[in-house]
Amino acid sequence: MNKVRVLTGITTTGTPHLGNYVGAIRPAIEASHDSNVIPFYFLADYHAIIKCHDPDRVRRSSLEIAATWLALGLDTGNALFYRQSDIPEILELAWILTCVTAKGLMNRAHAYKAAVAENEERNENDPDKGITMGLFNYPILMAADILMFNAHRVPVGKDQIQHLEMARDIAGRFNHIFGEHFVLPEVVVGENTATLAGLDGRKMSKSYNNTIPLFLPEKQFRKMINKIKTNSLEPGEAKDPETCTLFGIYRAFASDEEAAILRDQYRAGIAWGEVKQILFEYLNRLLREPRERYQELVGNPSFIDAKLREGAAKAREFSVPLLREVREAVGISKIGAFR
Amino acid sequence: MNKVRVLTGITTTGTPHLGNYVGAIRPAIEASHDSNVIPFYFLADYHAIIKCHDPDRVRRSSLEIAATWLALGLDTGNALFYRQSDIPEILELAWILTCVTAKGLMNRAHAYKAAVAENEERNENDPDKGITMGLFNYPILMAADILMFNAHRVPVGKDQIQHLEMARDIAGRFNHIFGEHFVLPEVVVGENTATLAGLDGRKMSKSYNNTIPLFLPEKQFRKMINKIKTNSLEPGEAKDPETCTLFGIYRAFASDEEAAILRDQYRAGIAWGEVKQILFEYLNRLLREPRERYQELVGNPSFIDAKLREGAAKAREFSVPLLREVREAVGISKIGAFR
Repeated sequence: MNKVRVLTGITTTGTPHLGNYVGAIRPAIEASHDSNVIPFYFLADYHAIIKCHDPDRVRRSSLEIAATWLALGLDTGNALFYRQSDIPEILELAWILTCVTAKGLMNRAHAYKAAVAENEERNENDPDKGITMGLFNYPILMAADILMFNAHRVPVGKDQIQHLEMARDIAGRFNHIFGEHFVLPEVVVGENTATLAGLDGRKMSKSYNNTIPLFLPEKQFRKMINKIKTNSLEPGEAKDPETCTLFGIYRAFASDEEAAILRDQYRAGIAWGEVKQILFEYLNRLLREPRERYQELVGNPSFIDAKLREGAAKAREFSVPLLREVREAVGISKIGAFR
Repeated sequence: MNKVRVLTGITTTGTPHLGNYVGAIRPAIEASHDSNVIPFYFLADYHAIIKCHDPDRVRRSSLEIAATWLALGLDTGNALFYRQSDIPEILELAWILTCVTAKGLMNRAHAYKAAVAENEERNENDPDKGITMGLFNYPILMAADILMFNAHRVPVGKDQIQHLEMARDIAGRFNHIFGEHFVLPEVVVGENTATLAGLDGRKMSKSYNNTIPLFLPEKQFRKMINKIKTNSLEPGEAKDPETCTLFGIYRAFASDEEAAILRDQYRAGIAWGEVKQILFEYLNRLLREPRERYQELVGNPSFIDAKLREGAAKAREFSVPLLREVREAVGISKIGAFR
């Protein structure tokens, strides 16, 4: 078992959209077929509840994300696909790591500091106003997610580099005190973590409320594409593909040749309505089949549940023995076992 | 099942001493026979590792504490006697509570503030120097210990009142957001939480290194009693029983009549050596039998282990269904269960 372990978590607070697909889901699903690695992909529901106190949204998002990944052909024969909350060892490990994590380390976390800065801008008396311990402890839970499986590589966006470094720091500190039990995970910053622009031209993101869900029914999907903001250039006027949201989305899916053709059409003054039609038809053709599978899966949650439990059972083949080892290292073992 | 649930945790970092016995163990064991309550008594090993990074000490302490309580006649038919670390639900709950706990609440915890104050006195640049997230999060774990069993009453010393109030605060916040799931535990400040003075006359406490272990072999026990500090009054000189460590210990065990007799002897000028002889004989007679049982138990850790597992199984009859309920409340339920 010398395979490289690659780990990715997906927070269960939203509905997968085109931006998620291009940036995270598609590369992860491609990687799931690589038999030289063991991919650990998990629904991070215990992260979701840090910010989201709407239980129905967490539930619905878990279903939608799981159905999406399965519909798109995730190779669950090779990848371990599980819910974080099905692995109770993770939270035990999180506590053990909490006991070796310096508070100073958490004080320096970007997400926490950003929240404090916001309070200070608002002239709040309490810089910690509205900040929960969930936000403050989040890097420790993330460290536990990773270290629980001694993952070697964790592909992250730039905003997550610091958290990875914290996981390395915590692992190193544990190893120093209690002996070598954890692999120091390697940060892999996706060079080509593609991002898409959303309806309003800003980065497609749940927080901007400008996303295009991946598996909308065809009619709604067309409406969404039609809602994408363009500039006011008339048909016949040359247009710049490189700054255009529509072209950006098209390019993320189309081949180089197809992109070149559309690029030429932009220069020749294609009408926005026509681009939208091209984009819709292109995406719709690509998404039709997985969308059908998605609808079937969403209608059959017991199947998804069984798949995730299967993944959890495989994941626990890693987490149960490692937690046992870690518990023994800190002194939590069978009574009298030291004699 | 309308019985009152009373909960007490014992941190597994030390060897039970006379002060522990009088202040905590004896009243708890007496209470364990009260069939009107369900006592939850647990070895708080996940608290132990906050401060103690010596695994052998945690292990040995767990064995010694369990053996002590059993040797002294804990009624495990009525009381639930378990190891915190045998109840994985507690740490899952701790995380869920973490997500509703305000950081500001933890900032105000006495134990944390005391550690910061120490750093400030030492003119450290970093007020959080040497402080771990274990110390900072400790009140949340304590809240989880209590709320996991919806304990009604938690007898505590004065130094723990604030933590209980925090548990109530956290429970209230959870109930407010997600519906009524937790009982707000009632603080019971032991009026007669007796304390004993130790070898040097200060309060008997592990941190002062002045304790008299409860179950020392007879010879060593006699030596310890002889080491208790007295003043330099000669035989024949009247002595004050009320300020005397020896008398304090004697009084904590003897009947009122027996105490009255020794008090008279103090006034009549009894020699310190004689008091020590009386104290030793009195305690030795009381402790001989439980000490033998203790030695037997320490030599039979599998029996202790089995007893604790039995307790954990009973405790999990409470924790498993409550955690399921709480998980559902926050949105972590069977995939698709909301449909």
